[in-house]
This record gives sequence, C-alpha cells and structure tokens, in this order.
Amino acid sequence: MDLIRAKRDGQVLTDDEIRWLIAAYTGGDIADEQMSALLMAVYFQGLDQAELRAWTAAMVSSGERLDLGDVPAPTVDKHSTGGVGDKVSLILAPLVASCGAAVPQLSGRGLGHTGGTLDKLESISGWRAGLSDAEMLTVLRSAGCVICAAGPGLAPADRRLYHLRDVTGTVESIPLIASSIMSKKIAEGTAALVLDVKVGSGAFMPDVPSAALLAQTMVALGSEAGVRTSALLTSMDAPLGRAVGNAVEVEEAVATLRGQGPPDLVEVTLALAREMLALAGLQADPAAALADGRALDRYRSMIAAQGGDPDAPLPQARHAEVVTAEQSGWLRRLDARAVGVAAWRLGAGRARKEDPVSAVAGVLCLARPGERVQAGQPVLELRSDDESRFARARQALAGAIEIGPAPPAAGPLVIERISGW
Amino acid sequence: MDLIRAKRDGQVLTDDEIRWLIAAYTGGDIADEQMSALLMAVYFQGLDQAELRAWTAAMVSSGERLDLGDVPAPTVDKHSTGGVGDKVSLILAPLVASCGAAVPQLSGRGLGHTGGTLDKLESISGWRAGLSDAEMLTVLRSAGCVICAAGPGLAPADRRLYHLRDVTGTVESIPLIASSIMSKKIAEGTAALVLDVKVGSGAFMPDVPSAALLAQTMVALGSEAGVRTSALLTSMDAPLGRAVGNAVEVEEAVATLRGQGPPDLVEVTLALAREMLALAGLQADPAAALADGRALDRYRSMIAAQGGDPDAPLPQARHAEVVTAEQSGWLRRLDARAVGVAAWRLGAGRARKEDPVSAVAGVLCLARPGERVQAGQPVLELRSDDESRFARARQALAGAIEIGPAPPAAGPLVIERISGW
Repeated sequence: MDLIRAKRDGQVLTDDEIRWLIAAYTGGDIADEQMSALLMAVYFQGLDQAELRAWTAAMVSSGERLDLGDVPAPTVDKHSTGGVGDKVSLILAPLVASCGAAVPQLSGRGLGHTGGTLDKLESISGWRAGLSDAEMLTVLRSAGCVICAAGPGLAPADRRLYHLRDVTGTVESIPLIASSIMSKKIAEGTAALVLDVKVGSGAFMPDVPSAALLAQTMVALGSEAGVRTSALLTSMDAPLGRAVGNAVEVEEAVATLRGQGPPDLVEVTLALAREMLALAGLQADPAAALADGRALDRYRSMIAAQGGDPDAPLPQARHAEVVTAEQSGWLRRLDARAVGVAAWRLGAGRARKEDPVSAVAGVLCLARPGERVQAGQPVLELRSDDESRFARARQALAGAIEIGPAPPAAGPLVIERISGW
Repeated sequence: MDLIRAKRDGQVLTDDEIRWLIAAYTGGDIADEQMSALLMAVYFQGLDQAELRAWTAAMVSSGERLDLGDVPAPTVDKHSTGGVGDKVSLILAPLVASCGAAVPQLSGRGLGHTGGTLDKLESISGWRAGLSDAEMLTVLRSAGCVICAAGPGLAPADRRLYHLRDVTGTVESIPLIASSIMSKKIAEGTAALVLDVKVGSGAFMPDVPSAALLAQTMVALGSEAGVRTSALLTSMDAPLGRAVGNAVEVEEAVATLRGQGPPDLVEVTLALAREMLALAGLQADPAAALADGRALDRYRSMIAAQGGDPDAPLPQARHAEVVTAEQSGWLRRLDARAVGVAAWRLGAGRARKEDPVSAVAGVLCLARPGERVQAGQPVLELRSDDESRFARARQALAGAIEIGPAPPAAGPLVIERISGW
C-alpha cells in the first residue's frame, strides 16, 4: 500500500522496492486488485529510466534466461510492436539466417486487430509453435533460425502482469509496454535486437512522437541489459503487402521469398534485414539472398525442422465476397485498422487469448493506396469459412476506402532509425 | 474495460454507465482488480458533479433507505470527517435533541490515528452499538437521539468499495470520500445534515482549500438528494479538548454535559449545535441546554435505552506515564496527528478494522497550546494496560510538543461555514 501511494503521488520507487513488488506479485503475496491499482498509477505517473530498468530486470529475474552462447553464429532477433498484414518475421528470420546470423525468434499470437506470427505459421500442416528449450536450440543450429512460442519459464512475471493489464485498461503505457517486450527479449538471450515500431492507424502507437518515445525507451533498456538494440519506425497506415490473415499471409511470405513480393513488404523487410546484419557485424546483401533462393531454402528447413510440410497446400476459405470501389479515381487511403478489424471479425483474430483462430479467414487487398481504381472494381476480397461473418466485417470497413481525384501524398515506409549506438 | 479506459482518458461517464458499474460491482460481476483500476483512474481524473451525483445515488440504491417520516420532530444529523479527541457527537446528539430535534446518528469506528464514536461509547458497560432498524427508531423516539452502527443493509456498495479503497491507495480522493460519506447519510433518511470538516495536521484534509472543496462537494450532493446540508470547517491542528482515547473521552464528554467542558470543545460543539438547530428550523439556545442539565438528561436516556449504565464507573488504565516539557515557555504547538498516533499505539485505535481496541488506552493533554509550561512539568499523560506500548507511543510524539518564548498565534476554531442555502 505504501508503494501504491508513493507511485500515485509521483514518487520514484527504489530498485529494492521494485524487485520486491515484482517478486511478491509473482509469488502471490500481492493481490491482483493492489497490483492493478499500482499499474494504473504507473499509467498516470510513469516510471523513470532507473525504475524501468529495475522493473524490467525484475521481470527477467522472475524466470530463466536462455544461454545462446554455444550457437556458432552471431544471434540477432527482431520484434514488431504489431501491425496489419505484418508477415515480415516469416521472411526476415530465414533471410537473415541465410546471410550468416542465427535468429532465435520467440513470437506471440495475435490479439485484437493485429495478427500473430505463430497463428500464421500454424496454418502450415504439422508445424509446431511449442518447442522445448532444447528443441529450439536444435532448430536454431540446423536451420539458422527458429520461430516459436516463449516457454512458460521465460519472464513469468510478464505473463501474469500482461493478463492483468489486459483486463484493467493499463495496456497503453509506454513503460509497461517497453518492459513487457524487453523482459522477454532479454531473457531469450539474443545478443542483438532490432525493434520494428509500427506507427499509424493500424499500429498501437498512432503518431511518430509516441512511437519514437517507445522505441527510445526500449533501445535504452536493451542496451543497458547488454543487448545491442536499435529500432526502425515503420509506417502502418495501410496493411503491409496485400494479404491480411493467416494462411493468406504465409502464401504472400513464400511468394516474397521466391522474389515475387509486393514492394512495400520487400522494402520494410530488407531495411530490417540490413539493420539486423549490421548489429550482428555481418557483411552481406539481403536483396541477393532473397533473389537467389537462399532465404527460401532456410525457410523450408526451418518449417520442416518444426514438423511442418513446406510443400503441403495451404488451406483455402470456402466463401469469398468482394468490396468494390464506389467511384473511379485514385485509391488514396486503405485504413489498416479497419482492414485488421475486418479480418479479425472474419475469424483470423481472437478477442480473448484462449479463443481459436481460423487459418483461412482474412482479407486480400486487390488494390493498394496510390493505385487507380474504376467504380465497381473489387478493392478487397473477404474470405471466411463462416458466411455469417461477412456482414460485421463489412461494417468494420465503413469509411476505410478513400477514393479521390488525385494520388495520395506518399510518406516514407521507414520513417526513422533509433539507435543507442 | 471500456469504462475503465474512458475514465482513464478523462471522459465523462453517463448516469447509466455509473449505475451499471456500481450494481455490477456490488453483484460480483466486476472483479476487484478492475474496480481498483477504475478507482485509481477516478483518483487522477476525478468525477464531475453529474457523475458524482449518479455515483452516490447508485450507492444509496444498492441498499435500503430508512424512512424517518414518522419521527415526531425534525431530524438532523452531524458527520465529522474525523479528528483527534473528537468526542463532539457524544455531547452534540443529546444537546440538539434536548432543544427539540431528533438526531439519528449512524456512526463509525476509528481507523488509524482518528478515533471512532462507537469505540468510545463501547467503554460504557452494557452499551450496544448494533441496533436493528426498529430498535434504532425506538431509541430515537424515546431519547430524541440515537448513536449506533449503520446496519448491513445501508449502502452495501459503499462498504465493499471502502474496503477495496483501503487496500489499494485510493482513499484520498475527494469525490470518493464525498460519495462514501453522503451515500450513507442520504440512505439514513435524515432531513438535515451538518458536516464537520476537520482541517489541519490531525485531519484528513491538511489545508483549508482542500477541506472547502470536500465540504462544497458534500453540501451539493446532500442538497441535490433533498437533504438540507451545510458544513463547518473546524480546526484540527491540536487535539480537541484534553482527552484522546475511548473511556477518557466519554469522561470528558460527560463533564462537558455537566457544564465543565474545555473551552475549545464547548465552542465547536455549540457552533455545530446552532447550525443543526437552524437547519432543523428550531429556535433554541444550546448553551442554556448545556448549562441547565437538559442535555445531560438526554444523554443518560440515550445510553440507558441502548443497554448502557450511565452511572457505572468507566474503566481505568493500569499504567500511566508522563511526557514532560523540555524547557520553560509557552506551549506553542501540540500536534494533533502525533497525539492521535500515540493514542493509537497505546491501544486506543486499530490498524485493521477487525482489530479490537482498548477502552482504557489514551492520552491526556495536561497542557494545551497557548498555556505556559515550566521545564519538567508534565504535558501529556499516556495511559495503557500494556506497558510494552509506551516506548513506541513516545516515538510518535517526537517533535509533537513545541515550546517557545512567545504565545502562539491563535487561529479561529470555526474557520468557515459552507452552505448550499
């Protein structure tokens, strides 16, 4: 209670107090109603850099820390703050591995309108997200990359806190977001980390200043914990690529690994790959590795090593409907959040973390901002096994498509680079 | 969750939303961790007048509302926000009753360094705080006044919320304090109410502006609910009277009812009595009722009607120690909070609401601010049945007694009157 009041009144908590708080909460000695009040006080009063470092370190200490010291290549990981159509990890991990790095990527599942890497990969027949630490190391050594779920021993305090934040309106706090992400990445044991901080309507951070603050906070936390960390701020006003969902995104990722990816997805992926390779101290051209099939080979090895069949046909939805252009002109805007919500309502996402997702549901963007469309031309294709879901998905798309007489002003996809180095 | 986020972001909740919140929490449909997060958001964002009215009304509606319509005298109650040595209710209720009003006073127990009226009266042999609604009405009709505990049917939402606030650092919020006090007073059914809002070191509100804001908030809530309400801001920098504890305060209250009370206690009591009589529309001189023994008669009737023996000797502590003046001069300050904490540590108060209190423990102020003292002269007498408690009580008094070469500047005891009328 003294600590709740201290934070509420804007005081700074000591390292010892924060260590005690996280340990006592994880151990069940602090009740949920007390921790949620403290989290709301943190929402309003923030955590300073020293508090945040102690908070993150306490979450790391609540569980095991993986040792990747025996991996015979420089380790480097990527984390995205979440977007719509963000299938970058599926391409990036094997791409960077094919350039000589080892990519130990512990990923999450989708929640709300943003997709999750594990959900996407699970549309591949036989593929397993849940690996033991030993299995994870084996895949990482053999394929050079691994994408799997974080084990229960990794930052368990974050797991409990995240669940509490999720039901108490305390998710949207930069220090709490930063410590949640960074505690898992520090515990994962990677030597270097690139953060893809999404900005825009489909992202968690709506504007550049708040995204930059989150990025700086995480870069500082990583650097202080001995992880070489940098961040790219990338645009998330429109979906990335053309596919939004699970199996449809795997299909687009594989096409990109074959050198046939949409330009925005390729640009963001290559920018992140270059950043990862630089942090890993490797000289390599990721564009060449995409073009010559080396990255695709790594992808196939990784999928196979985790029980998946890279040659198995991906599942297809039984039903599809299109959304057409209401007038002719330039497609000026295709709102990422609205498309994400539509895909979610079609079954691609979940409202609660225990809900299942549909592998086949999703949205295909048949036209993209900056392209010309004719009245009546299909702009979106909605897919689902459940016809009853189309109506609510369409509702989510009201106002999402903006067509006008002039092309939109195109902003950069990679907005800013933030580095502690 | 939507309502937590809305309040967190500074939005105004509707009447329906607030009604739903209070009903759902009382019914167990909102978890404690969600309500505590909301309470912390209210701590930071406040409630506007309409929200506060709805919040208070919802708490009243969570239980029964007493009907005092059959009581054959104008009903008027008093509520104090809590102080040190504040035995005013024991004198005021019979005093105002002896002037023709009916005083239905539902009181509380002490918590922390402030005493509780019920704890004090329970030092009288046989006296019962817990009455049924019917018993309460019988005592009110026969004696003209009753002081008892609020039944479990009265504003049960407040009971649950208060307990949650107590452990989550969300007590110190003016709208939450105001709605807690006023929901119980509105449900009690009194036609008029005078609030004694204490200001100073021993009070909940440290300064006049915050006390005035709390008073205005409560006066508005009462008036809007049809209760004629006004407030006096009274000083609580030094203990009121000379006795702080339970039996010792009853003794001082009885002495005051015999016309032998300390001047500060008499002044505050008469000011509150005049305010209550004015709200009740009664013309009477409370000073005369104190002087001629009418108020004492009412007190004896009330105690007897609740099972107490007004002639039984009060219990006495087995051990006493004195705190002496360290130098000669004027007693400039006798810190109310420090004396309250000392009495608490001697056993007069409780840390948790289920703890028992000692009837005999307490502090007697042998000298008061504005009096001259000689070095070595006893200033305080500490009393307890438990000798081991004296050391920690003395620690609480470090710096509490200030002696100087000149008398202190005497501020007014009754600082301000706040009325909606």
